[in-house]
Amino acid sequence: MTLHKVLFLPGKKTGHFETGTNLRDAALELGIVIESTCAGIGTCGKCKVQAHEGLSPLSRVEEELLSARDRSRGTRLSCQAQITGPCVCVVPEGSQTFGDQIMVEGRRGHFPLDPDVRKVSVQLPEPTLSEKYFDFEQLQDALARQHARVDRFDLDAVRAAPAVLRDSKFGVSAIVDGQALLAVEPPTAAGLFGVAVDVGTTTVAAKLLDLQTGETRAIGTALNPQKAQGADVISRIQYTIEHPGGLELMHRMIVKEINAMIGLMCEEAAIARNRIVRIVAVGNTVMQHFLLKIDPRNVASKPYAPAFQGPALVSARELGFDIHPGGSVYVLPNLASFVGADITGVLTVLDIDDKDAIHLAVDIGTNGEMVLGSRSRMVCASSPAGPAWEGAYIEWGMRAARGAIERAEIVDGDLQIRTIGGVEPVGICGSGLLDLVCEFYRAGVIDPSGRIRAADQLPGSVPPALRRRLIPRETGVNDIAIARIDADRSILLTQKDVREVQLAKSAIATGIRMLMKELNVDAGQIATVSIAGAFGNHVRGKDAVDCGLLPPVPEERVRFIGNAALAGAEAVLLSRQAREKAERLSRDVGYVEISEKPDFQDVFVNSMLFPDRL
Amino acid sequence: MTLHKVLFLPGKKTGHFETGTNLRDAALELGIVIESTCAGIGTCGKCKVQAHEGLSPLSRVEEELLSARDRSRGTRLSCQAQITGPCVCVVPEGSQTFGDQIMVEGRRGHFPLDPDVRKVSVQLPEPTLSEKYFDFEQLQDALARQHARVDRFDLDAVRAAPAVLRDSKFGVSAIVDGQALLAVEPPTAAGLFGVAVDVGTTTVAAKLLDLQTGETRAIGTALNPQKAQGADVISRIQYTIEHPGGLELMHRMIVKEINAMIGLMCEEAAIARNRIVRIVAVGNTVMQHFLLKIDPRNVASKPYAPAFQGPALVSARELGFDIHPGGSVYVLPNLASFVGADITGVLTVLDIDDKDAIHLAVDIGTNGEMVLGSRSRMVCASSPAGPAWEGAYIEWGMRAARGAIERAEIVDGDLQIRTIGGVEPVGICGSGLLDLVCEFYRAGVIDPSGRIRAADQLPGSVPPALRRRLIPRETGVNDIAIARIDADRSILLTQKDVREVQLAKSAIATGIRMLMKELNVDAGQIATVSIAGAFGNHVRGKDAVDCGLLPPVPEERVRFIGNAALAGAEAVLLSRQAREKAERLSRDVGYVEISEKPDFQDVFVNSMLFPDRL
Repeated sequence: MTLHKVLFLPGKKTGHFETGTNLRDAALELGIVIESTCAGIGTCGKCKVQAHEGLSPLSRVEEELLSARDRSRGTRLSCQAQITGPCVCVVPEGSQTFGDQIMVEGRRGHFPLDPDVRKVSVQLPEPTLSEKYFDFEQLQDALARQHARVDRFDLDAVRAAPAVLRDSKFGVSAIVDGQALLAVEPPTAAGLFGVAVDVGTTTVAAKLLDLQTGETRAIGTALNPQKAQGADVISRIQYTIEHPGGLELMHRMIVKEINAMIGLMCEEAAIARNRIVRIVAVGNTVMQHFLLKIDPRNVASKPYAPAFQGPALVSARELGFDIHPGGSVYVLPNLASFVGADITGVLTVLDIDDKDAIHLAVDIGTNGEMVLGSRSRMVCASSPAGPAWEGAYIEWGMRAARGAIERAEIVDGDLQIRTIGGVEPVGICGSGLLDLVCEFYRAGVIDPSGRIRAADQLPGSVPPALRRRLIPRETGVNDIAIARIDADRSILLTQKDVREVQLAKSAIATGIRMLMKELNVDAGQIATVSIAGAFGNHVRGKDAVDCGLLPPVPEERVRFIGNAALAGAEAVLLSRQAREKAERLSRDVGYVEISEKPDFQDVFVNSMLFPDRL
Repeated sequence: MTLHKVLFLPGKKTGHFETGTNLRDAALELGIVIESTCAGIGTCGKCKVQAHEGLSPLSRVEEELLSARDRSRGTRLSCQAQITGPCVCVVPEGSQTFGDQIMVEGRRGHFPLDPDVRKVSVQLPEPTLSEKYFDFEQLQDALARQHARVDRFDLDAVRAAPAVLRDSKFGVSAIVDGQALLAVEPPTAAGLFGVAVDVGTTTVAAKLLDLQTGETRAIGTALNPQKAQGADVISRIQYTIEHPGGLELMHRMIVKEINAMIGLMCEEAAIARNRIVRIVAVGNTVMQHFLLKIDPRNVASKPYAPAFQGPALVSARELGFDIHPGGSVYVLPNLASFVGADITGVLTVLDIDDKDAIHLAVDIGTNGEMVLGSRSRMVCASSPAGPAWEGAYIEWGMRAARGAIERAEIVDGDLQIRTIGGVEPVGICGSGLLDLVCEFYRAGVIDPSGRIRAADQLPGSVPPALRRRLIPRETGVNDIAIARIDADRSILLTQKDVREVQLAKSAIATGIRMLMKELNVDAGQIATVSIAGAFGNHVRGKDAVDCGLLPPVPEERVRFIGNAALAGAEAVLLSRQAREKAERLSRDVGYVEISEKPDFQDVFVNSMLFPDRL
């Protein structure tokens, strides 16, 4: 595996990516959502960036959609250009959508730069014989005069104060964390930094931020190493129940990985890691428990009671993080057993709680989480969509990896596919699966009940090339051939696969519908639908609405907000106002246990169907 | 060295003492001040106790002062009875003076039993599927309903909660420390304990207290092991300056010693040491710095600025104390550079700040500390008395150890002495020194300027036996023979020794006088003089007034309050009100730097004289 360094401007975000990764996905991984309406399938031509080196030659799509002038300026379509070497990619301002605005501009716009941890410069009077004088208490008084009242302290700060005060002629910098004195330094000491981290079940994303300017200094991504003990949260909990020391292991693994990410980010930004004074973390409830080494076993069985909602503000040293010895870790609060701190992070950077109109936020993944509401009331729910989006229980399913069919579209009467890395297809990942099902449904090959029609039942509008893809089975059902692998074998979309997709999308749709019922709103009243999460950002808004995963809202009301959970962690790291908002949300957002509602079954079965409105 | 266990009733205080220690001194070491007006010289006959075994035979003094009935009931004079074996000693209620009342009754009288750390029993609702339920937050709610709001937590308590809640059917005991949750336990868990400790430069005294009843469960005393690095605070600071790692060593030594004392006390009380959740410590400023591992070097040179006033509330684990892992150490605040947390402790159990009349508190030692005032204003000062009280720079001086002359009185025309342990004299300790100087002054052998009169200048009233003790020197001065050691040598009180005593007592007297000037009060206005500290409790009130160490107040206004510093630590351990009082005092008590006052020299020289009023 060869990794290439890619620098995205103007945000100065850097990542390392495998050969064949397209620029749009790479940007997404760093939290930059490049605007497009086709979600990367290569039909809208909107995801333009500027880049000259380290990329695959112009694709057929780019040759069609880019003007001669575009091409002469090094413009590429980010969904088409694949990374082949080190690359600098300029993302035009206009091309960065909401998601990135939250993280770069929105953050500053909504929240003042006002982190918990800050530097305060003070000049103390020098001690005299005739007056009561204690170094720490004088410092305390001087800080109070600068409106930085401290009533707690890290003992090491008190210990360091006498020498620093005298070496610096009683003019020093104090690092103040809320109302606690964290360190006393010469006024010439280096800057202050913080790390925001989103601990996902599958991936971990982090940013190193300058607490004094709000600037992003480095970005890091990694796989969650706990994957070795189970792909999903329940199997990891099971592991900890069955293995003595399992919880300790889960905890150590994630801390070690984050420590390693911090090391790489510090290296990149040329910052000493002990200048990091705060880590702010988001993650689902189980990831939060593992991070804090709290046993989440009761989340795995009814009534699914977690040990801890949070927020937690704990010593970084105590958790094993290698940052400033007085540094701390803040973990955002969860909303409910399966609506974790990551969703609190998303809501922190959305302004749903400040709006008169109804807004919907959805995180689509193995578990779907949804929040609906407005200023007057917000409710959340979760719904287990299952691992279909990750390729499990799908005949040719696979994770979003090299060779996976990630995009599919019927063009000129037949199916066109695109794979990750642009190589020969080896399977189908979540976004490809949804594309395939939606395309064949829109074409009339799949009926509103989800049945793949037999050849003789197909509407006349179905083009011959599609008809030829039908493979009738002895059981009376039909499968669809997607791509030939060799003489004997084809990648298939089976009837059973369609059923799995129906179950998965119905889970999400049911969660949303139950919340709509709870608040007594219909789709027309929903002003925006914000889609968060890695998988969500690979879904086309049109697909999501057409297949009934989302309620029937106009496509333009659907927006993709990228890793808004991480953006939430960043906001909380940089602004006390954001932190207060997150904590307020954790108290105020109500929870609806959809499975306990009497009409749950009805809504679920009904949501299995494809909306009959094409 | 043989140690004998002595149990004092009714307070159930136990200590181990060397053969020959008199019961009164043993009691004093455990904080029990047995009433007497002769301060242990054996003339008042008031210090009666009941004890049958493990003691020396009746002394001549006892035979004179005890009635036949007294003797038949096992009554002894505690200043006379020397320990020779294991002993149970009953101190009559009436015989326990102020000092002990503070520690046992006064504490309960003045302050409600309301420690920072307490147990709260709660019953939680059981989780249900349909409601938001997080173990910790439910516990938080249940505690709030019991008026125990917690907004912080020890992470281990959060970690333990899920299993304990389920094992105990959601009815548990929470250990709450202020507003922090420290532990969650089954309702059947053991009691809660705390340790009060007075870290003296020379000795360390500690008590193990039951936080739920206020009861004393064990008492411990030890020498401060830092003595190996210097007898006084300045030489210990010097050691830490000259030796890398010296501060760390001082810190580790004292923590190790206190840990050992805790171990012994826990053994005696049959308590697991992890049931101790709070240590409250007092000590002078330098001892406080060493305990917290804060460099006190700036206390050793002008302008004597300590690093830290306090109070400090820090993790016991962080300081290396082996108690409950979530336990904490609270160190009382200092008042000034040389008026430490021990004096704050003393003031906490005195009620000077609550009185309309003027009261004086004095701690007499190598350093003298004095506080004068009333409800309206309190001021403190310190004055370096020097080590004369410890026998340094005194021709035959020695510490208060076996063989030291600790008492002297002119009886029937000649000097009678008493030594520690009742053995042959080998030197003179502080209390003996003051006795000798005062007796010879009252007898007219020493004149008001401190000069030992020549034989031909002695008043006619001086009995012949005393006259024969004068030893004229070639330099024109006279020394006084105190006790013959062998054919050639006698223990002497030299003219130079008298001068040393004058310097030492003048230092204390000057401090007191400067405070009286500051508040513009004369001796007649002083309602009580409370003498604290180990040495102070060996001084006779009459001596202290006669020699001018104390202002001329009637003898009955002088009271000895024993180790009131430790009593202050106990009060703070057992009552939030006491803690608040200590913190208020540290802010409110003003400091007077006596050496900076223009009339300091005049007052000092004047205080050297013996008051000419006999």
